[in-house]
Amino acid sequence: MAVGKSVKRVDAVAKVTGRARYTDDFFIPGTLVAKYLRSTIAHGRVTKIDTGKAEQLPGVEAVFTYADVPQNKFATAGHPYSLDSAHKDVEDRLLLTQNVRYWGDEIAVVVAENKIVLQESLRLIDVVYEEYEPLVTAEAALAEGVREIHAGSRNLIGESHYAVGGNIEDALANADVVLEGRYQTQMCQHCHIENHIAYAYMDDLEHIVVVSSTQIPHIARRIVGQALGLPWGRIRVIKPYIGGGFGNKQDVILEPMVAFLTLKLGGRPVKIDLSREECMIGTRVRHPFDVKIRAGVNTDGTLVALDVDAVSNTGAYASHGHSVAGAAGAKFRSLYPRSAIKYHARTVYTNTPAAGAMRAYGAPQMIFALDCIIEEAARKIGMDPVEFRLKNVARQGDADPLSGERFKSCAIIECLQKGKELIGWDEKRAAWPKEQTGPLRRGLGVACFSYASGTYPVCMEVAGARIILNQDGSLHIQVGATEIGQGLDTIVAQMAAETIGIPFEQVHVVSAQDTDVAPFDTGAYASRQAYVASNAVFRAARELKAKILEHAGRMTGILGGELDIVYGNLVHRDDPTRIVLTLRELALDAYYDKERGGQLTADVSHKTTTNAPTFGCTFVEVEVDVPLCKVNVREIYNVHDSGVILHPVMAKGQVHGGVAMGVAAALYEEMLIDQNTGYIYNNNFLDYKIPTTVDVPDIGCEFVETYEPTSGYGNKALGEPPIISPPPAVRNAIWDATGVKINELPMTPHRLYRYFKKAGLV
Amino acid sequence: MAVGKSVKRVDAVAKVTGRARYTDDFFIPGTLVAKYLRSTIAHGRVTKIDTGKAEQLPGVEAVFTYADVPQNKFATAGHPYSLDSAHKDVEDRLLLTQNVRYWGDEIAVVVAENKIVLQESLRLIDVVYEEYEPLVTAEAALAEGVREIHAGSRNLIGESHYAVGGNIEDALANADVVLEGRYQTQMCQHCHIENHIAYAYMDDLEHIVVVSSTQIPHIARRIVGQALGLPWGRIRVIKPYIGGGFGNKQDVILEPMVAFLTLKLGGRPVKIDLSREECMIGTRVRHPFDVKIRAGVNTDGTLVALDVDAVSNTGAYASHGHSVAGAAGAKFRSLYPRSAIKYHARTVYTNTPAAGAMRAYGAPQMIFALDCIIEEAARKIGMDPVEFRLKNVARQGDADPLSGERFKSCAIIECLQKGKELIGWDEKRAAWPKEQTGPLRRGLGVACFSYASGTYPVCMEVAGARIILNQDGSLHIQVGATEIGQGLDTIVAQMAAETIGIPFEQVHVVSAQDTDVAPFDTGAYASRQAYVASNAVFRAARELKAKILEHAGRMTGILGGELDIVYGNLVHRDDPTRIVLTLRELALDAYYDKERGGQLTADVSHKTTTNAPTFGCTFVEVEVDVPLCKVNVREIYNVHDSGVILHPVMAKGQVHGGVAMGVAAALYEEMLIDQNTGYIYNNNFLDYKIPTTVDVPDIGCEFVETYEPTSGYGNKALGEPPIISPPPAVRNAIWDATGVKINELPMTPHRLYRYFKKAGLV
Repeated sequence: MAVGKSVKRVDAVAKVTGRARYTDDFFIPGTLVAKYLRSTIAHGRVTKIDTGKAEQLPGVEAVFTYADVPQNKFATAGHPYSLDSAHKDVEDRLLLTQNVRYWGDEIAVVVAENKIVLQESLRLIDVVYEEYEPLVTAEAALAEGVREIHAGSRNLIGESHYAVGGNIEDALANADVVLEGRYQTQMCQHCHIENHIAYAYMDDLEHIVVVSSTQIPHIARRIVGQALGLPWGRIRVIKPYIGGGFGNKQDVILEPMVAFLTLKLGGRPVKIDLSREECMIGTRVRHPFDVKIRAGVNTDGTLVALDVDAVSNTGAYASHGHSVAGAAGAKFRSLYPRSAIKYHARTVYTNTPAAGAMRAYGAPQMIFALDCIIEEAARKIGMDPVEFRLKNVARQGDADPLSGERFKSCAIIECLQKGKELIGWDEKRAAWPKEQTGPLRRGLGVACFSYASGTYPVCMEVAGARIILNQDGSLHIQVGATEIGQGLDTIVAQMAAETIGIPFEQVHVVSAQDTDVAPFDTGAYASRQAYVASNAVFRAARELKAKILEHAGRMTGILGGELDIVYGNLVHRDDPTRIVLTLRELALDAYYDKERGGQLTADVSHKTTTNAPTFGCTFVEVEVDVPLCKVNVREIYNVHDSGVILHPVMAKGQVHGGVAMGVAAALYEEMLIDQNTGYIYNNNFLDYKIPTTVDVPDIGCEFVETYEPTSGYGNKALGEPPIISPPPAVRNAIWDATGVKINELPMTPHRLYRYFKKAGLV
Repeated sequence: MAVGKSVKRVDAVAKVTGRARYTDDFFIPGTLVAKYLRSTIAHGRVTKIDTGKAEQLPGVEAVFTYADVPQNKFATAGHPYSLDSAHKDVEDRLLLTQNVRYWGDEIAVVVAENKIVLQESLRLIDVVYEEYEPLVTAEAALAEGVREIHAGSRNLIGESHYAVGGNIEDALANADVVLEGRYQTQMCQHCHIENHIAYAYMDDLEHIVVVSSTQIPHIARRIVGQALGLPWGRIRVIKPYIGGGFGNKQDVILEPMVAFLTLKLGGRPVKIDLSREECMIGTRVRHPFDVKIRAGVNTDGTLVALDVDAVSNTGAYASHGHSVAGAAGAKFRSLYPRSAIKYHARTVYTNTPAAGAMRAYGAPQMIFALDCIIEEAARKIGMDPVEFRLKNVARQGDADPLSGERFKSCAIIECLQKGKELIGWDEKRAAWPKEQTGPLRRGLGVACFSYASGTYPVCMEVAGARIILNQDGSLHIQVGATEIGQGLDTIVAQMAAETIGIPFEQVHVVSAQDTDVAPFDTGAYASRQAYVASNAVFRAARELKAKILEHAGRMTGILGGELDIVYGNLVHRDDPTRIVLTLRELALDAYYDKERGGQLTADVSHKTTTNAPTFGCTFVEVEVDVPLCKVNVREIYNVHDSGVILHPVMAKGQVHGGVAMGVAAALYEEMLIDQNTGYIYNNNFLDYKIPTTVDVPDIGCEFVETYEPTSGYGNKALGEPPIISPPPAVRNAIWDATGVKINELPMTPHRLYRYFKKAGLV
């Protein structure tokens, strides 16, 4: 009854009234503040650093440089630890570095009483660099004879291959038509409202407490332990409400440093609160991809071969390393599972900000390239682009071509059909002139994607849930999965209410994770939580329900099997109108009877060993103002197969947000880096262009509901997917309107002008 | 291996270095402060209250009076809720009162930005009273025709009787000698270092968070819900480290008010931080007892009858009500289980500060009276006081005369023998002159007690423990039982280490209780925790160990039953030197293997339905300076049978603290109240005399270890007992030295002068 309804979010009032408390809303008297000294070159080595004047400044508590930090190299990626050493993350960082690898690299840190002193003290540190030539692009970094950004790396961080559906060269040779293309995507940033912030203090000799705006508290705990060389059990991470993450808080960025500082300063609380400027360059960005594809198609519209070669630019440090390029290759397989596919990818170090996880983790880059060439193929053989996709996308009964795992739910065909209807595809194409002229031209575009519901079998998938029957008959649910604005807290409350049989309003959620007591879960990423946590919540709810029924049996003499719980009442299973007890009466007895009962709880940890593919598509109509080189998105629809929709309003919210970010990636956002110096021009919201509410089009959103049997409640991934297909759909629509194919992002007026000029349109 | 050793307290460094954080060390920006307006009369009614001027004062946020608070009467006693309506606590309070019942009663509360404004604002409130005659003593309150302090109560809050061992009048009639006496004990205060403090805020519409220095977070949660008429699940109570309680924080005093204030003020954080002066009168005190006893003895030294009639003065509000007098009567039964006993007690309202729980909960008052008459009996029949006690105290094989429950461990005889040796009883009595003269006179005194290990079967006894195997192979243990300085956190870590088989240092304790996630436990009182929690910890540790062995079996193929855990290693049960795996290796596998395992935890709630009697005695040598009427305690020894001693150093710490408080009650402490007006003269540490380190004698402490099989680790109560027997032992020693029997407490020079004058000594 609770699942599938748009119940009121558990944090709705808190968020709307400003009552919800974030990391910076908690404060310990005497908290010190810290700030990094960042390099003013992109590539080089510090040969001398003089902190003497800064240390003398009244109000400065301490200055630490690269010479003062532990020499344990660590990885910051928010992945589960792996028992397989080949699968471990790349450990290429120290807390501070002498070797500068991007403009803004952390070479020292100052701790002071307040921010004014802090700002002043940074100016007093003298640094002398030995400068090297910055390697800003992947191509430059891979060139022969250039300096290694990390010693021994040859600037190549990882490389991977796979091939399915037979020999790719044979498939291409047998294809009626072969197309080739090269597609490039930009570096962009997550731009969450709340910048990275964390503080730490020592509670006693044994425990370092880190309070942080993180998506991954349990992983942060491990990484802080690794970075500092301390037993992981001594680290405690607490995650309050967080103001957005989008993957940028799936990296452990500030936590090891604040933990280090409190350790050095006798347990005093120390906080680092990044400014927007620091956050833009000093956290993570999206990997720019450079993708070459060859596609083979037959004239009947069958896609027979996809040969993909991708280069991913990870910037100065590995962070998620080659995983993003690996995932990008894995996630589209389910979309065209009957083609021969060959995938090759490399990830390269450059002297640019470190790239990490960002919403949809490589898929937007790959789907942009893929859907460009799919569009090319359809148009080449003269087939309607929607029809071409309908013919080739996954159908019920298909399987992942690599694992052979058959899809248990798959409705991408229905999604495409619904999207086509929504936008009036056939009507508009029939009504519009074949070739448009004049300054304002309209076009239609489509793109589609597949994605995954978690990371299994690449990574381990675990979730935990603990449910407590309260004294008043209400429930408290505690999960390791993190609320990061997406509504996870509400979803798990719905699930528990549904399975136990009590009103949704009587489920209280412990929102903050505290790694000392929160059930273990790796956190918010990979669109995994509602899918993976569902199994833990389901099992915990079933277990608690069984305990409740057993206690009811002890109270009443009626066998537990003859009872059920409906809307908070214990009733006869065969006649739910016959109420035996209220849950409140039962709870009071379980707690307070002198002999029987006790606190009834269930504490479950569950590993998920399935991974349901999720599908969807975007349909868009644009109007291109040719002289102004400006694109106006007139209509846009995203249609998703995400299994059962757990909460329609929040699901729409995810889609609206994702499509807005997708349109932004298509038309607006890009980190601008000087190709010679590595300097970043637009590390702020004045110069980095995020669409505002007036720029974002009205967004249409529909679901084709399926039932995914590997999840406790029939659902599958929806968090990241909405961002994936808008950019290629917009690109295809611009092509439709103007006849100009743009193979790079973002499609700003600046870039369009170049293409239109070349095409003779302006 | 861990239990029984004086391991380093888990909070030792935190406490010694000042790193441990208490309620006032946490701070939310924008916290408002609140203060009560207290009555300036002891008995009356507010006829007019004008808060207008205070409300106008800049910085004042709100003023609430008795007219503004919910009209739900509630009880503040830290007892478990009861399903038996006859056993429920007396609900006689509102958050603020129009009817003034003691000097300092809470009639209004002001909320302001800071304490300066607060102090000023209180002066601006005009109050007009209708005054009634204060009823300061129990006798006055019980007199005919006086005004009822609570309407309908006849100033009598409860009355109870029991009789065991046959008809008391027959027993007295058959006794060789019958003695009578009347004994009075004083009102005193707990004097914990940290005054009462609490703050509350609203996290979202559903949850009011109260952070409080409390012994009983889970009970506080319920009572806040009751006082405010809110579902209990909406209340969340957090207990950080607390700076002492001694029973005064087993009452829910500030929590409902701060919760009410944040509710009224839109969720803003509001704090109440009582001053010492407020804490002395406005929290709880120890019940003054007025006890009449008749004792029957035979000339062979057999105690045959005890007829006890007690009046307990509970002051203005019920708080723990009649429970203290009831417990006082129940707890000495086990000491003289072969005598006929008749017990009658009444608890009376008066216009004095409310009395509640204080260390040993009625036993010090009752044992003072009892041991005075026991001494009288021994001396009357010319028997050595120790011999007399040895003849009559409980022996192995005796049973509680009321329940018939046989004692499973009992070594009071051995305790008395050891104490006698320690002080050199026989040698000194032989060496000293029969009658002492001169200004300085020495005397020996003895007294003994029995006590209980919890509250069952009067109340429900429950404890919870959750143990988590961490990623690094260490453990986290979370209990509902509260650390209030006594060392509970260390004890549960020892227990878990012992049962699971890992080094003590690898057990981390979640010290703070957060009622949303902490296992349910009613809290720190009744010397219950180490006894009651032991069973929950034992069960949880066994359950987790079984899960660990099962996982080891899955990893190695060796059956779990063939393995054991020794000092953090999984070993062959039959050959512990053969290490199969480390616990760290196992933990990594359980967490990170992609298919098997998960987070291994155990979450246990356990009801204890036993209650082990605990025993002990005090031996003291005093030197009385007769002209100065001053008593110098030269030697004092407490000897305890508390079962297995879990941590010798902490156990001694409990005894040292308890004996110091006992000596203080004997010689120093007393709340001085004007008998006409109810005004309290000494609400501060300048006027209320606590002994300082120079006043406290060197304390000797020994244990006679027994094994109590109803506890998981053989232990029984020790927290409160050390305070019980010092006062009568000192009193008996003064009698021994001077021939003067003092039948009231405290035995200050002021009071001694009165007695010595009457006896012609001065």
